[in-house]
Amino acid sequence: MTNELTLRTNKIISALKNVGADACLLSTSVNIYYASNRIIIGYVYIDINGNIAHLVRRPNNVTGENVFFIRKVEQLAEILGGLGIEMPKKLVVEGDEISFGEWNRIAACTGAELINGSNLLRMVRSVKTEWEISQLERSAEIQSEVLRKVPALYVKGMTDHEFSVEVERIFRLAGCLGLFRIYGGTMEAYMGSILAGENACAPSPYDFALGGAGMHPSLPLGHNGGPMKEGQTVMVDINGNFTGYISDQTRTFSVGKLPDYAYEAHKASIEIQDAIAEQGKPGVTCEELYQLAISIAKKSGFEKHFMGMQQQAKFVGHGLGLVINEPPVLCDRNKAVLEVGNTIALEPKFVFPEVGAVGTENTYVVTENGMRKLTSAPEEIIDLLG
Amino acid sequence: MTNELTLRTNKIISALKNVGADACLLSTSVNIYYASNRIIIGYVYIDINGNIAHLVRRPNNVTGENVFFIRKVEQLAEILGGLGIEMPKKLVVEGDEISFGEWNRIAACTGAELINGSNLLRMVRSVKTEWEISQLERSAEIQSEVLRKVPALYVKGMTDHEFSVEVERIFRLAGCLGLFRIYGGTMEAYMGSILAGENACAPSPYDFALGGAGMHPSLPLGHNGGPMKEGQTVMVDINGNFTGYISDQTRTFSVGKLPDYAYEAHKASIEIQDAIAEQGKPGVTCEELYQLAISIAKKSGFEKHFMGMQQQAKFVGHGLGLVINEPPVLCDRNKAVLEVGNTIALEPKFVFPEVGAVGTENTYVVTENGMRKLTSAPEEIIDLLG
Repeated sequence: MTNELTLRTNKIISALKNVGADACLLSTSVNIYYASNRIIIGYVYIDINGNIAHLVRRPNNVTGENVFFIRKVEQLAEILGGLGIEMPKKLVVEGDEISFGEWNRIAACTGAELINGSNLLRMVRSVKTEWEISQLERSAEIQSEVLRKVPALYVKGMTDHEFSVEVERIFRLAGCLGLFRIYGGTMEAYMGSILAGENACAPSPYDFALGGAGMHPSLPLGHNGGPMKEGQTVMVDINGNFTGYISDQTRTFSVGKLPDYAYEAHKASIEIQDAIAEQGKPGVTCEELYQLAISIAKKSGFEKHFMGMQQQAKFVGHGLGLVINEPPVLCDRNKAVLEVGNTIALEPKFVFPEVGAVGTENTYVVTENGMRKLTSAPEEIIDLLG
Repeated sequence: MTNELTLRTNKIISALKNVGADACLLSTSVNIYYASNRIIIGYVYIDINGNIAHLVRRPNNVTGENVFFIRKVEQLAEILGGLGIEMPKKLVVEGDEISFGEWNRIAACTGAELINGSNLLRMVRSVKTEWEISQLERSAEIQSEVLRKVPALYVKGMTDHEFSVEVERIFRLAGCLGLFRIYGGTMEAYMGSILAGENACAPSPYDFALGGAGMHPSLPLGHNGGPMKEGQTVMVDINGNFTGYISDQTRTFSVGKLPDYAYEAHKASIEIQDAIAEQGKPGVTCEELYQLAISIAKKSGFEKHFMGMQQQAKFVGHGLGLVINEPPVLCDRNKAVLEVGNTIALEPKFVFPEVGAVGTENTYVVTENGMRKLTSAPEEIIDLLG
């Protein structure tokens, strides 16, 4: 693990050098975990000479090299002084995540010019190490196994809520950590979403591929307590966080037989996914892949139903790792290119008011030769009535 | 609900006047829900003349008075102009919650002097309306019912993980919304925690009353997958969010008979709780109540075990509502006084390495006559072996 952490901190150091910074002061759970493989409340300080200091407010049992227990960030100068490290002049902090108050406090006590590095760190994390890919792959494997057990949970007459609880239970029993880390202060979710029938069309405030009305106005997302009706689908998109790294995999089930167009749209969804996976090589832009999705959706004749109806999501895939929404995002006008080591969920989905949602979602890693799929539950629409 | 919202927005307006502000621009889920009873991604603008505008980025199906769909906050001036409302000169924003970037953007596009009102809004929300109390009471009632069913879930040989999953399941079936809103960017949790035996002593980075090692280093909190051993306790502290308002209620169970001192410490815990509830009248300071707890803990002889061992929590109770951690906090040196309408969870707990945690937690509302208990599951230690 020491080598792995060195790999990751070296990536951070390269990025710091690229923006002319002397050091960074990390304080969010995700970046602290990335840099140290543990969660603390406090800070991880990394400078471009490879000096690392762990400033820990909690818990009080952390051990290791250069661990310092602090009460407040103002102790940074004293700690660096004690280590014989010069105070940074240009310091990267997580400006899109830490509060205004925190920013000012760090600026005041360091006297440094602060640089907003939230995006920089997201870009660093978006290219995974081999070990990180192995962790995501492990999450994907467990998630795939659990999804295979979903049809056995269905009991006739269940509401979508009752069904969701049983799905969550088998995810949790298999070791799903539950916590669903999301970038951005406005996004919220519990364990993902299970959308039955017309509820798949309900717009949500949250910027996921699909919404759902939810059970209560204080959390307008996911299942709404309605019946699972014959002739409709139920789309299962539940948290694949089994290792800290979150795999994203959606499967569509049906209650009985669906109208033919639902199967056709599902086929179009898989066609889009496979086309992107084939084209998704290092150097290809995100917008090209998005346009590829749109062109196949158009050709299918179901374009109006693509990624929502009343409110359409404007992407067809997204990076993922320690959080569910990372770069790169496969959306229009995004000229970023895929890199080896990007991990990306593709989720072309179609929605029909009378039927519900169809489509799949799978998690991939970008390799020299294209996108390798990590998730493996069967992709066809499985009939819960057997 | 209109009257209720008027009550709440009038409380915000009074607070704005108290700090000499002209208006506030709310953007966090919690404050937006408080001001409008719905979740949107966007902003709620409230000025001291009672003008309210809802600036909605998502979802696209929001209706009602003064709802404006926006792409970006820079559209505020145009919208207020259209309503004939003057732009604010002093504007309250949520400075401890919104990012540095967001603060600067709002400052630039409004030209206003910004005031950090995070704490102000927390203080407003800490005094509940009758309707809010009814919502918390409803959460407390359901949570109490569900906790009564916990003993029936135990099967000999279960790990704490397996037990936790079954407890979560019945909470979810009863309508628990799952989401556990917490104030402060560094706090994370899934559904609360279930602590069996010595795991109750494990320090956690998160500032809850007790910690637990958790199942994985990426979420060091709660159950750790270990066995539930005879002669030890299991403490169940699971999310009571059934209405958006989160009730907090902890119960202690045992696997077989415990040593006598565990029952004595449990009795001391209830004694502390009852003493605070009796003394906790409007005008009493938080530090008085904390010192009362400490004095009873000392008298009991279990002081070293109070609120953790290796890492002790420095509070004995906390406000709660739309988030689990609100003012007032019953801790040392807090000179804030209780007010009618405060809702407070009291959680005196003791921890013993060989046995685990004992104690209770209950949710109260402060009335003219003292603290009224909203939670009602049996408080004695129930033996899971029957």
